[in-house]
Amino acid sequence: MRTSRLEAFSDGVLAIIITIMVLELKVPDEPTLVALGDSATGFLTYLLSFVYIGIYWNNHHHMFHVVESINGTVLWANLHLLFWLSLYPFTTAWLDESQLARTPTVVYGINLLAAAVAYYVLQLAIFRSPGGERLRTALGRDLKGKVSPAIYLAGILLAFVSPLLAVLCYVLVAVIWLVPDRRVERFVAASNPSQP
Amino acid sequence: MRTSRLEAFSDGVLAIIITIMVLELKVPDEPTLVALGDSATGFLTYLLSFVYIGIYWNNHHHMFHVVESINGTVLWANLHLLFWLSLYPFTTAWLDESQLARTPTVVYGINLLAAAVAYYVLQLAIFRSPGGERLRTALGRDLKGKVSPAIYLAGILLAFVSPLLAVLCYVLVAVIWLVPDRRVERFVAASNPSQP
Amino acid sequence: MRTSRLEAFSDGVLAIIITIMVLELKVPDEPTLVALGDSATGFLTYLLSFVYIGIYWNNHHHMFHVVESINGTVLWANLHLLFWLSLYPFTTAWLDESQLARTPTVVYGINLLAAAVAYYVLQLAIFRSPGGERLRTALGRDLKGKVSPAIYLAGILLAFVSPLLAVLCYVLVAVIWLVPDRRVERFVAASNPSQP
Amino acid sequence: MRTSRLEAFSDGVLAIIITIMVLELKVPDEPTLVALGDSATGFLTYLLSFVYIGIYWNNHHHMFHVVESINGTVLWANLHLLFWLSLYPFTTAWLDESQLARTPTVVYGINLLAAAVAYYVLQLAIFRSPGGERLRTALGRDLKGKVSPAIYLAGILLAFVSPLLAVLCYVLVAVIWLVPDRRVERFVAASNPSQP
Repeated sequence: MRTSRLEAFSDGVLAIIITIMVLELKVPDEPTLVALGDSATGFLTYLLSFVYIGIYWNNHHHMFHVVESINGTVLWANLHLLFWLSLYPFTTAWLDESQLARTPTVVYGINLLAAAVAYYVLQLAIFRSPGGERLRTALGRDLKGKVSPAIYLAGILLAFVSPLLAVLCYVLVAVIWLVPDRRVERFVAASNPSQP
Repeated sequence: MRTSRLEAFSDGVLAIIITIMVLELKVPDEPTLVALGDSATGFLTYLLSFVYIGIYWNNHHHMFHVVESINGTVLWANLHLLFWLSLYPFTTAWLDESQLARTPTVVYGINLLAAAVAYYVLQLAIFRSPGGERLRTALGRDLKGKVSPAIYLAGILLAFVSPLLAVLCYVLVAVIWLVPDRRVERFVAASNPSQP
Repeated sequence: MRTSRLEAFSDGVLAIIITIMVLELKVPDEPTLVALGDSATGFLTYLLSFVYIGIYWNNHHHMFHVVESINGTVLWANLHLLFWLSLYPFTTAWLDESQLARTPTVVYGINLLAAAVAYYVLQLAIFRSPGGERLRTALGRDLKGKVSPAIYLAGILLAFVSPLLAVLCYVLVAVIWLVPDRRVERFVAASNPSQP
Repeated sequence: MRTSRLEAFSDGVLAIIITIMVLELKVPDEPTLVALGDSATGFLTYLLSFVYIGIYWNNHHHMFHVVESINGTVLWANLHLLFWLSLYPFTTAWLDESQLARTPTVVYGINLLAAAVAYYVLQLAIFRSPGGERLRTALGRDLKGKVSPAIYLAGILLAFVSPLLAVLCYVLVAVIWLVPDRRVERFVAASNPSQP
């Protein structure tokens, strides 16, 4: 199977996920700034999940750039990743509606972690398929990919102290992947396409 | 007509179906694990339907890989299949909200069966179009495709005994298509791309 | 501008329209056949609109098959068509929820008519662009395209007698476009790609 | 990175935004013309946002037509634009449901302005990437692009006098971009692809 149709399908699913999340943003009942202020949490959680899907789309694209052909394992590992990403609208909406309560914050973190693990599993599946060695070389030490799950885990645990600290951890991972900071890049060395 | 645009349109529809099903997952009212537990049925039925759409996308892709060009009959047989698949979000949501009550379980099974029949009709339409003979050869005895409707029917009937048994039948078909078990593969012989 | 991106965008919009209509189907409150029976109107109106979008997608594809390049007028005429088609979920849902009341039936007919007119305007715009002459030849007398608006109008007027008669008119147009009846085809002669 | 996948992803997101906005249109409770009349504001605001997304899609297409390859900055500048555009369904729904109240009108204008600024930032990012000089030449003085934000700002301020005046400003910008008026074109000179 060529990668083009898998890429097109994944693009479609990611484009839909990133867009339907906005449907979870409740339109304020009153036409006032105060009522809009109640949507602030929703707006920020939406932004966070939007950035995450953007990062995954970006990395997903880089990853399949190196791959030549795919087998059934890669195909299902990819659908497995899309499954966890497709739950973002659900966990994001719960996080928002509960105003960052503890349980939804933990569940959101678990969703982020599950997607990261699914991305890692997808990488392993690609490593073993034709052309997979090239991806392994391109990834190098993949420090970003190894640090992210640890920060997710820290966030999930910190949620029991304070949900806000947990969300800060989730934001931190997004920033690590987002900001092309030269110092970070030198520190992280050759960690190009990988999971957040 | 080339197959590329039919494939792209089908990919789009399947990507949307697989993603909007998550909109049917009700966000829990309370920020507690107990409230999330009430979503467990929804989560599992979503997972089941997700896997089914994934299987159809996979098989659909293989099927049109062999086909060279399509006529009006194939085009409408394809839209007929997409119609039944587009009802999955509806029947899945009903199955979930009723907590696996008998009637919704039967209706869900009928939906699965209708999609399988539509897939079979699409295959017949392709058999008669240019290049269709190649698909017939590729399918071979197509044991998976012949066994699935029987298990669906068994599930629909078993729902009158116990809806849970019916759902187990539906899960069984998904597993048959999903797991690339070597023994099953030898048993099922040369049954590559076909309907679940 | 090449036609490929316009086709891809239109395919995307049509795929989304055809799929999100199912979101308007209300999940029955009770897990009973009686409750599902209340969704029968919704199911049938969904089917009708699904077939209409399918016909438009089919004809749209044929139409741009002949066209070589497009200008700004064609682009906006195409968006104009997509606008009216994007209202189908809205007018279909109203038709369904009112159980085929008179006003929603008239409004649905007006929506069908507006889309047909938009399709006709798009044809005219293409006639005047490079390669447009080929479409004019391909269309021939375009009897289907000329008869459809008349039947829509008849339906809209008949809604004041009985909404059911109006809906039958709308179904009739879909059938005319759907069924590749040989006698009809001989009668309608060379009317390939056109609006319903 | 090639531009093709970025274009495909953007097309997907824009196609979804333009289509899901119709989900915000509330189906009238009563099957009467009076009840439909209450949806008039919704219909017109939907039309306005539909036209805006259409303009952005059109200009976006022209813009990437000249570009050869893209880097990480262009990619994120593009996602930044898509983020603001993805909020259109939200701000449009609020504008509609409040029947053009002051605060939602201001917020809608800010959304339009933010998207215009994001488009401008995307242009700057492209200017600095390979082939970017060609876009700069193609844009010329870009009068439309410079006038639009000023009119948005005027609209936002006028909302404090009368929300209707503000909406007229927003309509004016759409018309400027929509109508290929020869006089305007001569006046605006060589301002082809740019932001509204």
